[in-house]
Amino acid sequence: MKVSVIKNVLDANDRLAADNKALFDDKKVYVINLMSSPGAGKTTLVERTIVALQDQYKIGVIEGDIQDTCDADRVARLGIPVVQINTGGACHIDGNMVREALPTFDLAALDLLIVENVGNLVCPAEFKIGENEKVMILSTPEGSDKPAKYPLMFREAAVMIINKMDLMPYVDFNLEKAKKDALTINPKLKIFEVSCKTSGGLTGWIEWLSAQITTYKKS
Amino acid sequence: MKVSVIKNVLDANDRLAADNKALFDDKKVYVINLMSSPGAGKTTLVERTIVALQDQYKIGVIEGDIQDTCDADRVARLGIPVVQINTGGACHIDGNMVREALPTFDLAALDLLIVENVGNLVCPAEFKIGENEKVMILSTPEGSDKPAKYPLMFREAAVMIINKMDLMPYVDFNLEKAKKDALTINPKLKIFEVSCKTSGGLTGWIEWLSAQITTYKKS
Repeated sequence: MKVSVIKNVLDANDRLAADNKALFDDKKVYVINLMSSPGAGKTTLVERTIVALQDQYKIGVIEGDIQDTCDADRVARLGIPVVQINTGGACHIDGNMVREALPTFDLAALDLLIVENVGNLVCPAEFKIGENEKVMILSTPEGSDKPAKYPLMFREAAVMIINKMDLMPYVDFNLEKAKKDALTINPKLKIFEVSCKTSGGLTGWIEWLSAQITTYKKS
Repeated sequence: MKVSVIKNVLDANDRLAADNKALFDDKKVYVINLMSSPGAGKTTLVERTIVALQDQYKIGVIEGDIQDTCDADRVARLGIPVVQINTGGACHIDGNMVREALPTFDLAALDLLIVENVGNLVCPAEFKIGENEKVMILSTPEGSDKPAKYPLMFREAAVMIINKMDLMPYVDFNLEKAKKDALTINPKLKIFEVSCKTSGGLTGWIEWLSAQITTYKKS
C-alpha cells in the first residue's frame, strides 16, 4: 500500500497561506507581516503606524507572542481591533495560526491588517501567512553584521526599517555596510532609517505604506 | 504490526546530548551553551572571557551561525581552537551538530568549551547539547519585557548576563523589572550586569565561571 508522505511542512503551510491571501484579496485587506529580532521595535512601529494612518484607513492587528498579551494590550489602547496569538512555544506565526485568528475580525471593514510576528530573525521568514509584503526591522544596537548572518530574512522582506537611529552615537553600527550587505542579498529592498522613539524618519515609511494600500485597493 | 513512533524529536536530541555530556565528563571539559537574541553581544562576551581566562585554562569554542564564519574568525584571532557550525537554515544548535564538531578538538587538552548558539531567544533553549550550564545574555536595548515574553530561555539558563549597561542612559530599560521578572521565572538565576564594550562589570562573571570550572574539575 502506498504511503503518503508530506515531504515539506512548508508546502502545506504555503497552501494555507494561499487560502488566506485569496480571502484578503476578496475583502481588499492589505496585509503586512512584520518581523525582527526580539526588542528591535516592532510594537512601537505598529503604534506609530496606527496613529499616523487610523484617520485614513481602518486597521486591524494580529499580535504573535509565545505567551502573554502585553503587546496586544498596547495596541488595544489605541482603539484598534487586535487579536493575540499565543504560539505556546512555537517560534513563528504560520498560515494556520492566522487563519484561526481571522473570524474575530470584520474583514470587509478593514483596509490594513498588520501581523506582528514572534521576535525572531530566523524562522518567521520561512512561513508565509498570506501577506502582501514582509517588512523587517533591524535595530542599530544589533550590529551591521546581521544581513550577512541571517540572509533569508533580508531576502524575503520587501522593506527593511533600520530602527533606533537615535542610538547611532552610542553603538558600533556601520550604516553603509548594513545597507550595502542587505541590498547585495536583495537589490529590490526598500530601506527606511527611522527612530520609533523620536518618530524621526517615519514619514517615508508611512507614505510608502499608504501608497501601497491605495494601489492595492485599485487593483 | 506495531508501528514505532518517535513521539518527541526532543527526546531523541536528549539522548545525543547525554552522550556528549558523558564524553565531556570523561575528559573533564566544562561546557557552556551561550544564547541570546541576535546582536546582544555573545561573540564580544566570548572574546572578553577568552582574554581573561586563557592564561589559566585551555579553551575551545564552537560557533553556531546559519551561515558565514565571521564570529569564528574573530575568535581564531585570539589563538583559540574554534569550529564553525553552519546550520544551513536551522535556528538553533542541537546535540548532533555538537557531536559532529567534537572530533576536531583535542578534548583531553581542554578545560572549557564555549558553544555560542545561533542568535535566537526562542528555539535554542529547547535543545540540550551536553552542556554543564546554559548562559543567556539580555541586552538593554531589547527592553525589560523579554523575560515575560520568552520565559523558557530565562527558565533554562543558570546565568543571565545583562549586557550593554553602557547604553542605560539612552534606552528605556527597567533594570529592576527585568531582574524581578527573570527571578520570578527562575529564582536560582545568577545575574551579572556588564558592558562587554567597556568591560565594566565583567569581573563577577569571570570569577563565577572560573569557580565553576575549578569545582567541576575536582568533582
